Amino acid sequence: MNYRIMGRFMSLIVLTEAIFMLPAWAISVLYGEFESARAFAVTIAATVIVSVLVYVCCKRARIRFYAREGLVCVGLGWLIMSFVGCLPFMISGEIPEFIDAYFETVSGFTTTGASILSDVEAMSKGMLYWRSFTHWLGGMGVLVFLLAIVPASGKGSGFTMHLLRAESPGPNVGKLVPRLRQTAGILYLLYLVLTILCFVFLLFGGMSPFEAICTAYGTAGTGGFGIKNDSIASYSVYIQNVCTVFMILFGVNFTCYYLLLLGKVKEVFKDEELRLYLGIIFASIVLISINARGMFSSLGETVQQSAFQVATIITTTGFATTDFDLWPTFSKAILVILMVCGASAGSTGGGFKCGRILLLFKALKRDLRKTLNPQKILVVRNNGQMVNEKVLDNLHTYLIAYVFIILISFLVVCLDGESLTTSMTAVISCVNNIGPGLDQVGPTSNYNMFSVWSKIVLILDMLAGRLEIFPIMILFSRNTWRKMV
Amino acid sequence: MNYRIMGRFMSLIVLTEAIFMLPAWAISVLYGEFESARAFAVTIAATVIVSVLVYVCCKRARIRFYAREGLVCVGLGWLIMSFVGCLPFMISGEIPEFIDAYFETVSGFTTTGASILSDVEAMSKGMLYWRSFTHWLGGMGVLVFLLAIVPASGKGSGFTMHLLRAESPGPNVGKLVPRLRQTAGILYLLYLVLTILCFVFLLFGGMSPFEAICTAYGTAGTGGFGIKNDSIASYSVYIQNVCTVFMILFGVNFTCYYLLLLGKVKEVFKDEELRLYLGIIFASIVLISINARGMFSSLGETVQQSAFQVATIITTTGFATTDFDLWPTFSKAILVILMVCGASAGSTGGGFKCGRILLLFKALKRDLRKTLNPQKILVVRNNGQMVNEKVLDNLHTYLIAYVFIILISFLVVCLDGESLTTSMTAVISCVNNIGPGLDQVGPTSNYNMFSVWSKIVLILDMLAGRLEIFPIMILFSRNTWRKMV
Repeated sequence: MNYRIMGRFMSLIVLTEAIFMLPAWAISVLYGEFESARAFAVTIAATVIVSVLVYVCCKRARIRFYAREGLVCVGLGWLIMSFVGCLPFMISGEIPEFIDAYFETVSGFTTTGASILSDVEAMSKGMLYWRSFTHWLGGMGVLVFLLAIVPASGKGSGFTMHLLRAESPGPNVGKLVPRLRQTAGILYLLYLVLTILCFVFLLFGGMSPFEAICTAYGTAGTGGFGIKNDSIASYSVYIQNVCTVFMILFGVNFTCYYLLLLGKVKEVFKDEELRLYLGIIFASIVLISINARGMFSSLGETVQQSAFQVATIITTTGFATTDFDLWPTFSKAILVILMVCGASAGSTGGGFKCGRILLLFKALKRDLRKTLNPQKILVVRNNGQMVNEKVLDNLHTYLIAYVFIILISFLVVCLDGESLTTSMTAVISCVNNIGPGLDQVGPTSNYNMFSVWSKIVLILDMLAGRLEIFPIMILFSRNTWRKMV
Repeated sequence: MNYRIMGRFMSLIVLTEAIFMLPAWAISVLYGEFESARAFAVTIAATVIVSVLVYVCCKRARIRFYAREGLVCVGLGWLIMSFVGCLPFMISGEIPEFIDAYFETVSGFTTTGASILSDVEAMSKGMLYWRSFTHWLGGMGVLVFLLAIVPASGKGSGFTMHLLRAESPGPNVGKLVPRLRQTAGILYLLYLVLTILCFVFLLFGGMSPFEAICTAYGTAGTGGFGIKNDSIASYSVYIQNVCTVFMILFGVNFTCYYLLLLGKVKEVFKDEELRLYLGIIFASIVLISINARGMFSSLGETVQQSAFQVATIITTTGFATTDFDLWPTFSKAILVILMVCGASAGSTGGGFKCGRILLLFKALKRDLRKTLNPQKILVVRNNGQMVNEKVLDNLHTYLIAYVFIILISFLVVCLDGESLTTSMTAVISCVNNIGPGLDQVGPTSNYNMFSVWSKIVLILDMLAGRLEIFPIMILFSRNTWRKMV
């Protein structure tokens, strides 16, 4: 392992994080929250000192590195980043227990939005801001941000390639990859512009700037941390609809927006993943509206609430406006399946991803046809292009890993003795970075009742889900830590 | 499609079935059950006439056939076989509704053991015998039986190969395949001997011959239909233990017994699937005994009951002695995972199969290592032998199909409005040919409350599970019914 180059990257990551903590500190000062301001100041100072020291120590790094360093960097990077991120909560005493603060921060960075807090409104403004901002930072990825701003040193391009691959959500960053730095820059710019748009629309709905910025962060990162105890149930229908629309927008592959900018409108609307994603959303809204009609007084309200719930679940945001745990079984079943399904690849949304499901389905169809005509050579096509068999192999590996992780986590969480539905949906919700589940972890509840062990498992699940499993899985492999010649 | 060769096979299948119905008719006569005897007689007569007619009509069959005919034959064969099998229930009026009678028969042949009957003891002896016998027949497969007795006509060997592959449970019939007829014969002989052994042991426990033979059928086929309303809860601990042991024995790959006969003891105990299967059973018994200790008065009873429940679920038999729905969540979670896990390939047990899980796990490990060392060529080994990449590809296809089927069935069954746990475990239980699930389909309940639509879906699930998905899936493919040049 090339520990020095890893050390350098880690220090850059936490240094960036410390800089991003400055606005939260400023807000604490602005609102006269002394305890919070002090907590942020201490964290920032300590982080800067340590990271600069580490950076200097690791200056003379060898140039050689392997794919595994890239994966390990991402996995460890997120663990450390979450550690630094949870310090203000602990120092200020607003979330005194380490495991709770860490859970909350990981939940933030991974854009899960699962909370251990039962009274969000009791938090200081500074902490609320930081909590929501972790969503925004985690949504597009901290490393992607680093790539966009740190000068490429030439020799590191292969390394950064591994990093980008490991951190960006979805099976491929295909179209945008060739010019890495530029790509990362464009992605972040699009992300910023869309977030500002969301913020402005929310302001129009009568939100205060503070509420609007926090809600915009939660929406953009498809995270779902709210700043009120009832999430956004008490806001107006207009604001809820703005959230619905923007959640869906942030669940679209960002490549589509890039292509739109280039004027390739036709190409965008022919994109099979986009079609599937929008098709699933539409079908789910219709089915739930029919099934859960009896829960609401008017058809308009039914459709509006169905749309919001479908958007919040499929994009894995996790905002809540109503307790869908009370809905009919069929509607709940659709939501559970949407939890697993997830948003598009290359978006800030989590889950298994529509693109993967599309490919799996196509591979299945191909294989069935092959059983009928063994002598034929059949390829899988996506958007008209042939899909490399290696991509399909990776997909299969991903599916196996995904199923294994869910089953093993489920078993451990069940030791707590909560109901099967609670345990299962808690795991599914965390692996897919959603937030709420059903039963005891339903939209009106939180994750505080779980034991420390379950929380650790769920933390790892959230990270595995956000980083597409392998960067976390690889941390537990003996091979990774074996000395390489 | 070569419809004539298919017609010939179908007629042979139902003819065989009619012959196997004779003992049930005899038992009805013996116990003076007029209605039942008449129902069997009518069914047998009608079946013989129709099948002989079809056989004669289809005499001049072309010799050419393809893989798809083999798969379709198996799929359709089981549908028709279940239709014939359900006639006595309907004609005698003991299960008047067609869908219920069909559900019960499919449940029998697929060795699921899910019942729509709330009062089993009200059934006539003849019907009970037939109901249990469907388990025995379905356990090893009717087509396998046919292969063993019908003279190989030489030209049909490729065809029968496809049939055997499609019907025998597990990823490969590898070791035994070369001499097909002989193999089928050996398998059935082993099956018969083990069943007789089980029968004798049950007789020693004080069961009447009728009870013993029915219970032996249910155990051997790992089916689980009981002849008492409380399954086998009211029988002695000795009888329950006999069932435990024999269920586990019938969940072992029959190849192992064949190898034992050949004196290759060492090879058997080195078999990785056998080790995994026994390992999982042992670990589950220990974990549940610890977790559910408080449910029983003594440690001995705890272990005995845990062992029984683990055996009945992992082998997908479904006998019940206690309502495990009342057990702690962790124990229930283990049972749910055992439901999915299933027994060994090449046994009469259903489920996903330990052998598949073993291969998936190895493939995952290999793929992870490949991520770390992209330049290395790594192969997956099973029992020391290299596994063909094609086998792994098929496995992946199977996993995808398996997940899709469970999710889609789950969605349809949820329309009935039963709880999520009920719907999910009903589907898992049927796809894996177990019988009981949790909640409303727990060990003390039955499947009668489901709607006709749900029952149809569950029937297809049971068949898909028993026939390893593809023979049933292929019936729904347009390609299958397209004319081939």
